[in-house]
Amino acid sequence: MPKQYVEDLVPNTQVNSSFVVRSRSFASFRNKPGQYLNLSLADRTGEIVGRVWDNAEALGEVLTPGAIVRVVGRVEEYQGKPQLIVVQAEACRAAEVDPSDYLAASQRDPMEMLDELDAVMAEVENPCLSALLHAFFDDSDFRTRFTRSAGAKTLHHSFVSGLLEHTLSVVRILKVVNESHPQLNRDLLITGALLHDVGKVEELATETTIEYTDTGRLLGHTVLTDRMVRERLQQVPDFPPPLADLLMHMLLSHHGQKEYGAPIVPMTAEACALHYADNLDAHVQYFSQVVAAGAKSGNRWSDYQRLFDRYIYLGDAGEQGEGPTGQE
Amino acid sequence: MPKQYVEDLVPNTQVNSSFVVRSRSFASFRNKPGQYLNLSLADRTGEIVGRVWDNAEALGEVLTPGAIVRVVGRVEEYQGKPQLIVVQAEACRAAEVDPSDYLAASQRDPMEMLDELDAVMAEVENPCLSALLHAFFDDSDFRTRFTRSAGAKTLHHSFVSGLLEHTLSVVRILKVVNESHPQLNRDLLITGALLHDVGKVEELATETTIEYTDTGRLLGHTVLTDRMVRERLQQVPDFPPPLADLLMHMLLSHHGQKEYGAPIVPMTAEACALHYADNLDAHVQYFSQVVAAGAKSGNRWSDYQRLFDRYIYLGDAGEQGEGPTGQE
Amino acid sequence: MPKQYVEDLVPNTQVNSSFVVRSRSFASFRNKPGQYLNLSLADRTGEIVGRVWDNAEALGEVLTPGAIVRVVGRVEEYQGKPQLIVVQAEACRAAEVDPSDYLAASQRDPMEMLDELDAVMAEVENPCLSALLHAFFDDSDFRTRFTRSAGAKTLHHSFVSGLLEHTLSVVRILKVVNESHPQLNRDLLITGALLHDVGKVEELATETTIEYTDTGRLLGHTVLTDRMVRERLQQVPDFPPPLADLLMHMLLSHHGQKEYGAPIVPMTAEACALHYADNLDAHVQYFSQVVAAGAKSGNRWSDYQRLFDRYIYLGDAGEQGEGPTGQE
Amino acid sequence: MPKQYVEDLVPNTQVNSSFVVRSRSFASFRNKPGQYLNLSLADRTGEIVGRVWDNAEALGEVLTPGAIVRVVGRVEEYQGKPQLIVVQAEACRAAEVDPSDYLAASQRDPMEMLDELDAVMAEVENPCLSALLHAFFDDSDFRTRFTRSAGAKTLHHSFVSGLLEHTLSVVRILKVVNESHPQLNRDLLITGALLHDVGKVEELATETTIEYTDTGRLLGHTVLTDRMVRERLQQVPDFPPPLADLLMHMLLSHHGQKEYGAPIVPMTAEACALHYADNLDAHVQYFSQVVAAGAKSGNRWSDYQRLFDRYIYLGDAGEQGEGPTGQE
Amino acid sequence: MPKQYVEDLVPNTQVNSSFVVRSRSFASFRNKPGQYLNLSLADRTGEIVGRVWDNAEALGEVLTPGAIVRVVGRVEEYQGKPQLIVVQAEACRAAEVDPSDYLAASQRDPMEMLDELDAVMAEVENPCLSALLHAFFDDSDFRTRFTRSAGAKTLHHSFVSGLLEHTLSVVRILKVVNESHPQLNRDLLITGALLHDVGKVEELATETTIEYTDTGRLLGHTVLTDRMVRERLQQVPDFPPPLADLLMHMLLSHHGQKEYGAPIVPMTAEACALHYADNLDAHVQYFSQVVAAGAKSGNRWSDYQRLFDRYIYLGDAGEQGEGPTGQE
Amino acid sequence: MPKQYVEDLVPNTQVNSSFVVRSRSFASFRNKPGQYLNLSLADRTGEIVGRVWDNAEALGEVLTPGAIVRVVGRVEEYQGKPQLIVVQAEACRAAEVDPSDYLAASQRDPMEMLDELDAVMAEVENPCLSALLHAFFDDSDFRTRFTRSAGAKTLHHSFVSGLLEHTLSVVRILKVVNESHPQLNRDLLITGALLHDVGKVEELATETTIEYTDTGRLLGHTVLTDRMVRERLQQVPDFPPPLADLLMHMLLSHHGQKEYGAPIVPMTAEACALHYADNLDAHVQYFSQVVAAGAKSGNRWSDYQRLFDRYIYLGDAGEQGEGPTGQE
Repeated sequence: MPKQYVEDLVPNTQVNSSFVVRSRSFASFRNKPGQYLNLSLADRTGEIVGRVWDNAEALGEVLTPGAIVRVVGRVEEYQGKPQLIVVQAEACRAAEVDPSDYLAASQRDPMEMLDELDAVMAEVENPCLSALLHAFFDDSDFRTRFTRSAGAKTLHHSFVSGLLEHTLSVVRILKVVNESHPQLNRDLLITGALLHDVGKVEELATETTIEYTDTGRLLGHTVLTDRMVRERLQQVPDFPPPLADLLMHMLLSHHGQKEYGAPIVPMTAEACALHYADNLDAHVQYFSQVVAAGAKSGNRWSDYQRLFDRYIYLGDAGEQGEGPTGQE
Repeated sequence: MPKQYVEDLVPNTQVNSSFVVRSRSFASFRNKPGQYLNLSLADRTGEIVGRVWDNAEALGEVLTPGAIVRVVGRVEEYQGKPQLIVVQAEACRAAEVDPSDYLAASQRDPMEMLDELDAVMAEVENPCLSALLHAFFDDSDFRTRFTRSAGAKTLHHSFVSGLLEHTLSVVRILKVVNESHPQLNRDLLITGALLHDVGKVEELATETTIEYTDTGRLLGHTVLTDRMVRERLQQVPDFPPPLADLLMHMLLSHHGQKEYGAPIVPMTAEACALHYADNLDAHVQYFSQVVAAGAKSGNRWSDYQRLFDRYIYLGDAGEQGEGPTGQE
Repeated sequence: MPKQYVEDLVPNTQVNSSFVVRSRSFASFRNKPGQYLNLSLADRTGEIVGRVWDNAEALGEVLTPGAIVRVVGRVEEYQGKPQLIVVQAEACRAAEVDPSDYLAASQRDPMEMLDELDAVMAEVENPCLSALLHAFFDDSDFRTRFTRSAGAKTLHHSFVSGLLEHTLSVVRILKVVNESHPQLNRDLLITGALLHDVGKVEELATETTIEYTDTGRLLGHTVLTDRMVRERLQQVPDFPPPLADLLMHMLLSHHGQKEYGAPIVPMTAEACALHYADNLDAHVQYFSQVVAAGAKSGNRWSDYQRLFDRYIYLGDAGEQGEGPTGQE
Repeated sequence: MPKQYVEDLVPNTQVNSSFVVRSRSFASFRNKPGQYLNLSLADRTGEIVGRVWDNAEALGEVLTPGAIVRVVGRVEEYQGKPQLIVVQAEACRAAEVDPSDYLAASQRDPMEMLDELDAVMAEVENPCLSALLHAFFDDSDFRTRFTRSAGAKTLHHSFVSGLLEHTLSVVRILKVVNESHPQLNRDLLITGALLHDVGKVEELATETTIEYTDTGRLLGHTVLTDRMVRERLQQVPDFPPPLADLLMHMLLSHHGQKEYGAPIVPMTAEACALHYADNLDAHVQYFSQVVAAGAKSGNRWSDYQRLFDRYIYLGDAGEQGEGPTGQE
Repeated sequence: MPKQYVEDLVPNTQVNSSFVVRSRSFASFRNKPGQYLNLSLADRTGEIVGRVWDNAEALGEVLTPGAIVRVVGRVEEYQGKPQLIVVQAEACRAAEVDPSDYLAASQRDPMEMLDELDAVMAEVENPCLSALLHAFFDDSDFRTRFTRSAGAKTLHHSFVSGLLEHTLSVVRILKVVNESHPQLNRDLLITGALLHDVGKVEELATETTIEYTDTGRLLGHTVLTDRMVRERLQQVPDFPPPLADLLMHMLLSHHGQKEYGAPIVPMTAEACALHYADNLDAHVQYFSQVVAAGAKSGNRWSDYQRLFDRYIYLGDAGEQGEGPTGQE
Repeated sequence: MPKQYVEDLVPNTQVNSSFVVRSRSFASFRNKPGQYLNLSLADRTGEIVGRVWDNAEALGEVLTPGAIVRVVGRVEEYQGKPQLIVVQAEACRAAEVDPSDYLAASQRDPMEMLDELDAVMAEVENPCLSALLHAFFDDSDFRTRFTRSAGAKTLHHSFVSGLLEHTLSVVRILKVVNESHPQLNRDLLITGALLHDVGKVEELATETTIEYTDTGRLLGHTVLTDRMVRERLQQVPDFPPPLADLLMHMLLSHHGQKEYGAPIVPMTAEACALHYADNLDAHVQYFSQVVAAGAKSGNRWSDYQRLFDRYIYLGDAGEQGEGPTGQE
């Protein structure tokens, strides 16, 4: 039976397909005993609200967050949006699912991105920095995990291969900055850009959903990056300690300000450039993502974005929506 | 008599050449009556401390800030640096000086930069935005003033044609951002980048020195930019008001946060991109400038940079210097 | 059929009257298929919760935000407060409603306020400032819109003619400040006070509800004020540019701090005075409004006021209420 | 011998008159052994720089901060300003000096201000609040100290009777606020305004100079105000505790925000009004004072005002001055 | 009938026992007329959700916040947690309840803590400070109230005798700080620690629930502490004013920063020590309390702690829970 | 020839002894050609101002910062304080000086402190944590460097063995906190306290003066601590990763807030306790140090302490000084 994708689910159709459970919560009926289930079901094409009206306790044992579950049910319309009424559910066996079906992924082809990465790596002339990069990206285990990793849990590039996509964008920006500012050290710029977020591979678990690891929460990706780079540095013979300090300084300071978790602030032009290029790409991606999501909303303004303390303008995509209640 | 440039002044030589007076202050002798003059004398190659030991009051009337003055004197060494002991001074006639000799200028050729600007302008496809840009950059008076203007009084690109150099760097960055984020409106990105700081032409007077105008201080370049663009907009027939709003929103919000003087924060992806690209180029230029200046200092760390609340690393340029007293 | 006002609706009565729809949202029944409607219905005397239990989808097409709608239904009591169960609804024709019935208005008579405004305007002696004021307030279209405009969407003076009421209060305060500080320029104080918020006429649409315009959100009222005053300034012959700069400086800086959206901070005593007088009147009005609203609540303390991060004291108005849960 | 006032001292005249010593510091000659004295000498008309070139140690014992000293010397010109070269100095006996000659005072007549205060006090109708006010202002010792006290050490109203002048300005503002907001409690507004800074009488010692007391520094005037009002409250029979709480709340919260030393923030409309009226009057006085001082400077902009993080505009008062070095 | 404690209530049992009502709110049924009641019922062993499905209005009159009420009903399971369905309720007479049954209390024995307090008090050698302490702690009314008082409403030590427990912890810390820093005044440290929060006795009402008093909200415990200590100080003959200032300075500044409500910041080593010791004990208690509460949750991370802007790590206590949604 | 100590230098005596040069700067004579030297000369008992009037350039080559130099000269009095007029200077050979003579040291005996450290280490029961501690403190090279290291460059414990003294104080505080909060993990508390600042051994060079290393500035001691502990952790067999994460979390978060350079904030009760105990000891030491230094100043208040934005009270130590100019 072929997979039915979320983006194709329309009201008044039967469903018999598998999805990943993003979240699950029980709620009680207001005027009768018992409870039902609210679900978020997803695959790589989107997310749909699910409900279990009957037999919620039993089905709830299957429908656990992160699990890929085959559900049987029916799509209904609710407030103009589809929702899936689930009547049966059973866990899928690992063998029968393709994990890449269940989490959104970069719109760029990973192989093409890896080619771009390899090409950029080849531009680095300093033999020590080059050797360090190869120690990372020629290690097939690391290469695989890096290629899969999301860029963040929710903020930006929160999809499969998001870290790789973001990393390449930062490299591109730094290369054009280097054209305007040729006195900057090009090899450090490229190396710093390629390695600045490698710790996210350990901070985040990009499985069927994107979650923090305990270690990730307790230590943070900045320190994990430091550890990972230190370890590979020791594999490069005669890496000059002052060069190592300059590189590590870029990585440790790339959040730019202590308030944003940088244990040290940028004190070289290369570190300064990395910080702003990282912010530029991440925030533009975030704004674009909000606009893309909102395009379907029928509103002229996005929901309130707590993280940025503002609404984002959607424009003519829709006229019938209700604008946000503003601040003055 | 050929101009003697500041960068060529060595101790124990006679001087008879013209310089611009950057600042002037009287000081009193400690153990005898009377006073002397402390000067900052400059030309496009640098700045030198000047002193008038005798006849300070009379010479002080000639040596006024902003004036280009022919001085006769002698270079001595003081604390390892040259200083110019002035014994005669007379104001230069406008006809006999070339103003470009007295203020540092971009290392890029202005004509080449204007060619780059024209080429970028030609890439804009939207006819209204294109017409607006031509209303600015085909106006020879504006073109002349824009080409000369500094990017800021002291912070970054504080030299002749600094505004043009910075503007082009921001365009370059936004074009590469657009490659990674093709959903952004390319014409708005380019137009916004080219116009984001036009108000600086009125905020700053880039003459023999760079000074704020009274209007510049009282109103600020963000509002001056709004006024200038509004005026030219009215010359473009049928400019769609919503497009004007989107463009003006980018310009008004490009400082990014209210704390930095933006009357409104970025609420579109294009405005977000412009803000970060502007910061990226400006701050990298500032860091580079500090490193370049410090390279001559013989220290491993720059002086304390109040604006960024940090020292900047200079590295091996010198070993004999005294490092900054740090913070903990 | 005479209008039934919200403040007179008591439980267990039939309703057949028109109200404006402030907000509308669909919700689903918890234990049966289908959905119902939550409404906020209002007129100038207050706001009441409305519900549509049956036929929600059809009636929802009529009950759109901002619309004035005749509803038939019945008032019931719910949690000690009346709520209106709507069974029929049809849109009103513009001809049959008096818009002033549907939005709260200043308790001061607009005509009396305009008289006060004209009298204040007549006190301005400087002919250029006087001409500028007349260019605004003798323009009947502007005068009408200014007279109607709210002072803000929700924060303070959020009612018809709120802008006019607030403007006059600020004038009064500045006149008494001028008595204690006679060295301030009285004409600038009065003119600045009268014009400081004129941009709100374009930032806000004060129709049957108070909403931001898209232009208002994208540009903000400070810049809109600058544009409007600039335009009228050009109608006054020989307006001295330095006087224009001083006036525009007051208007642009009246939010007082960059954090509050002022592109420039007050740098004259008159600008400083305008800023604090504006804050004084706006915040006292806000506190008074919270106390007035809370007087009916039966509590000793208001709800938590997020904007001010505090509770406001209501006192003896009621004893039986539950106090806020405090912070420590 | 009549007093020679500072404002009348012109270069090249002999001086034999008495002044108060505001500050004193020793400095060493740079190229000979020994030291000289830098002084600030003052009277109610202004301040002049003083120097003791000879016999500095001995004269330094007489020229102690706060002392009123008869000096013999000569006025010379230094950097365009007069300075007083002191050759003899002896302490004045208390009997021979009029303290009011040595510290600037309000330009308003204290008796007239006390009449205004008494008239305002008579407007208070609530008998308890009225009795409390009389307990303060009919106590001749308090009345004398309050009348003399400065409003602050350096910030605003830093002159004899400055506290009284400021207090009355705040009352005036609150009365006009009450006209626009009649629902506020007029008696609380007036009483709160009159008492809001009484603790300054103990925090500051307004003698020949204005200094903090140790108690003032260790406890602050807000708590000292609380103590003084509590003490007088106990003298008013049957003062209702809730009314006392409302009044004390106004006094304790009048700094408006915790960051400014308010142990509690305003939670009533009257407390809110007092806070903003206090700020309005204090800051306008400060700006005016800077403008007045700067008018003599020959500059278009004031020195940098650290407390407000800005320059203040002086305008046409002078053209020849050097503007501030700006920020970007 | 013996009390049934909250911690012992298990699903499917009948209840007939008394509890205190912590909060109460009405809610409406979604698809039928009428409303039900949500309750928080508590005793010293914990808190349980309560519901009244039938007869909500009548029972709601009895089930008022703060009341101790005998309820009859049945425990059901809901979302894995017990909830109490109430069918009858009647207010308890004061005589039949032991108030200590209804609010959690310190795990330390109050008598033992008072002994520790008396022993500490006996260590104070300075006779004036000793007399002041005895004026507080030998006053049986104050002693009783102090012993009962919570340390805070919700933040830390929010239970009966929490203030006493916290006070003793602060004393212990300061004594060990004094060992490392013997130059600090031991008597001031102990006295300051014992008195630093006495105002909480009047700020909070620790009855069947912990609530702010109106006076507590309007004035704050810092000023109340000042008043209480001032009053007792007057009972100690010849208390040296400078010593009083030093002690009061400690008490007034113990919040450490103005932002946290300190009218004055610590300016002595003893005041500095008190501030940090207070914070240390309070925050460790808060973290411990979150960990203890979370241990039963089956999660690895606590709920989001708004006050500290973070999640707290719970660790292995449970594996099946859903982690928080993180921030990046 | 015995060493003459700074604290014993009195005016009008000859000096022939060795000191460390803390700082050196050239200055020019104001009314004659040439320059002189300003020095700070020091030993473990204090610091004295030095001057070289003659032959400054030649002697300046010897008197370099950090050098221990034998000087010949004479003590004179200047502004009530001694200053040393240097006439001869020659560098000391390493063999002839005892480095401990030139930098202030902890008043506690290092051997006694090491005994205390060993005893505390022995209290740790967890074998892995114990092994980790022994891997540090049984390594004689580390033990030597740790014993010598200052606690900070200037802020607190800025003297030889300051790090050890501070570390032990933090341990003591945490042990007493553990008595009040027995649920905390005692072994983690002790281990965290002992290791929290080990990175300072590499961040700071505590030689004849205390200076940052380049690596220290570029990476910061928090990350250096992480690296050092990671390295020793690998020497302990079977160290449980979750325990390592909990320990490293304490170390990485001990600055408490991101603004203070913590890459991660405390999320366990033990990390919270370490943070506050560290602050408590460091700040009390800083305040005590200011009071001790000020005791000799003859003032009632310290100089302005920029880091804490306040003056510190010195009290009766002197009456004749001039108080600070306060803020309002």
